[in-house]
Amino acid sequence: MTAVPAYIAANATDPMTLGTIERRPVGPHDVRIDIRWSGICHSDIHTVRGDWGPQPYPLTVGHEIAGIVAEVGSEVTTHQVGDRAGVGCLVNSCGDCTNCANGDEQYCLNGSVGTYGATDRDGTITQGGYATGIVVDADFVLRIPESLPFEASAPLLCAGITTYSPLKHWGAGPGKRVGVVGFGGLGHMAVKIAHAMGAEVTVLSQSLRKQEDGERLGADHYYATSDPETFTALSKSLDLIINTVSAPVDVDAFLGLLAVNGALVNVGAPAEPMSLNVGSLLGGRRTYAGSMIGGIAETQEMLDFCAEHGIGAEVEVISAEQINEAWERVLASDVRYRFVIDASTFTA
Amino acid sequence: MTAVPAYIAANATDPMTLGTIERRPVGPHDVRIDIRWSGICHSDIHTVRGDWGPQPYPLTVGHEIAGIVAEVGSEVTTHQVGDRAGVGCLVNSCGDCTNCANGDEQYCLNGSVGTYGATDRDGTITQGGYATGIVVDADFVLRIPESLPFEASAPLLCAGITTYSPLKHWGAGPGKRVGVVGFGGLGHMAVKIAHAMGAEVTVLSQSLRKQEDGERLGADHYYATSDPETFTALSKSLDLIINTVSAPVDVDAFLGLLAVNGALVNVGAPAEPMSLNVGSLLGGRRTYAGSMIGGIAETQEMLDFCAEHGIGAEVEVISAEQINEAWERVLASDVRYRFVIDASTFTA
Repeated sequence: MTAVPAYIAANATDPMTLGTIERRPVGPHDVRIDIRWSGICHSDIHTVRGDWGPQPYPLTVGHEIAGIVAEVGSEVTTHQVGDRAGVGCLVNSCGDCTNCANGDEQYCLNGSVGTYGATDRDGTITQGGYATGIVVDADFVLRIPESLPFEASAPLLCAGITTYSPLKHWGAGPGKRVGVVGFGGLGHMAVKIAHAMGAEVTVLSQSLRKQEDGERLGADHYYATSDPETFTALSKSLDLIINTVSAPVDVDAFLGLLAVNGALVNVGAPAEPMSLNVGSLLGGRRTYAGSMIGGIAETQEMLDFCAEHGIGAEVEVISAEQINEAWERVLASDVRYRFVIDASTFTA
Repeated sequence: MTAVPAYIAANATDPMTLGTIERRPVGPHDVRIDIRWSGICHSDIHTVRGDWGPQPYPLTVGHEIAGIVAEVGSEVTTHQVGDRAGVGCLVNSCGDCTNCANGDEQYCLNGSVGTYGATDRDGTITQGGYATGIVVDADFVLRIPESLPFEASAPLLCAGITTYSPLKHWGAGPGKRVGVVGFGGLGHMAVKIAHAMGAEVTVLSQSLRKQEDGERLGADHYYATSDPETFTALSKSLDLIINTVSAPVDVDAFLGLLAVNGALVNVGAPAEPMSLNVGSLLGGRRTYAGSMIGGIAETQEMLDFCAEHGIGAEVEVISAEQINEAWERVLASDVRYRFVIDASTFTA
């Protein structure tokens, strides 16, 4: 075992503190990565705060990991020391079930293993990316193209794939009118990717505060959801809406913006049940759907797509001692658009 | 104008009574049909009872109409006197909008015209099929194949197309596992059609009371939703579920029966909002959708499909004076599986 510096949550409420966590020895199928950049996702906060259930503290979170391969196991042929490598939300799955066989490891029927707070297949609790190193099964290590700005690539591992996957699945492309609800960490990635896919992109944000950014990053239109007129103006005009907001929204109002066969896809999961009138679905063969990150092969495809189109996240780089403060700013929606921790600043 | 015998609702509550309604003269694009058979749909009852809003009484309902062409307008080339003809839920639409152009007249952006209780494009209120005759624009008149049992063809115009359309749209066929929630007028048609399409069909009915019928009509499996074990046994096992129940159901429980990419499709519209946990959608890229009848071309396609596969509704023929009693039996779910009025028994 190797101890690596990490930020650790001792419980649901106290600020995280610097300490060390253990990483397993590199097995034959493993890759050890020196972490360089680690994105901060709202899910990290929900998890530590216990919003999604009790957690196995002490816990290190972080699932937007970009680094350099430092060591590979004897049987690893897909990665080499010195390569750029990424780790997202998953570090293992059964590999045998129908869903794994179809490349949908995130829906593994025997339970995929999350990057932190999950019980790995060897019985240990997984620890995430707010650290300087990690050891991961090679099948769950992504290749980060050299042409991507390195720090801007980290958020692609969660925010990127979470939006790319439904955009691809529901056919975003030329001639498709795509709405993006919420313009934060996920939303700004959805705009960039949908635009690169060739779709006509409409942002639906609470206010027009970030309109200039939205248009700069690829939005063709930008509307405020606080203005009821928005819902009249855009009635039945969109083919696909990616809802990146994790809080409850007026589902019927957004369904009303969809043309026939349109889909409203949630990528965030509000804790509260959502309510809708079935008539909103019936009146246009509409669908309300959900999509959760993406499979490993699709994540690689997304990284390659982003490299081809020069897409990274808009990031604000922070040092390790700013993590707790950054969380407060995420909760206040005060980030444009993703915090990324510079792992060289962990001084244990 | 021509007066024809019809059953008429004077208001939301009183029994319907025999009287006469007026039909317009046959215009150049019209077809006059002598009605022979008219199905009773639960929607007729909802409409008259005011469940879906106030109605323009006096009103004659009925939108599962099968008859013989009695007269055609000077410009009608698609139908001839003596032909079997059908009329479903729609008698007009704008014909110009994107949705009409795509054959989705039911989603006409300028408002399709329902067969009863709607304002037609000439300003009159439409009157439905509990009558001996009707005059309809030729574009909304279907051809009923001679090989179909005539009385059993009437319910295809609503119950048939309402289930055929989503089964087709969501790809029911060989290798697809289709669930049907509710085994009544719509449900029994869904079973017959899904079976004919080659899908593996599972009925999800409240009890096992109609299991024998279900298996005879094409179901491969039959489960009771009153048994909680059903939801464990079928977890993540279906690709498509057609929910024919108009009352609220436990949406999360049914979503839990879907495999990755599965769809739960409502064809009935409960008056109450439905509630669901977004996690039920996220956990398998699942969709909750709605589908409303079908377009005219697709309705013809469905009739031809039913003729090819020898599919009609299971009907109980009644005479006109039994209509009010039949409604009570529909409300008590005491019909196997569709009442059809013999229009020769209207004696005004």
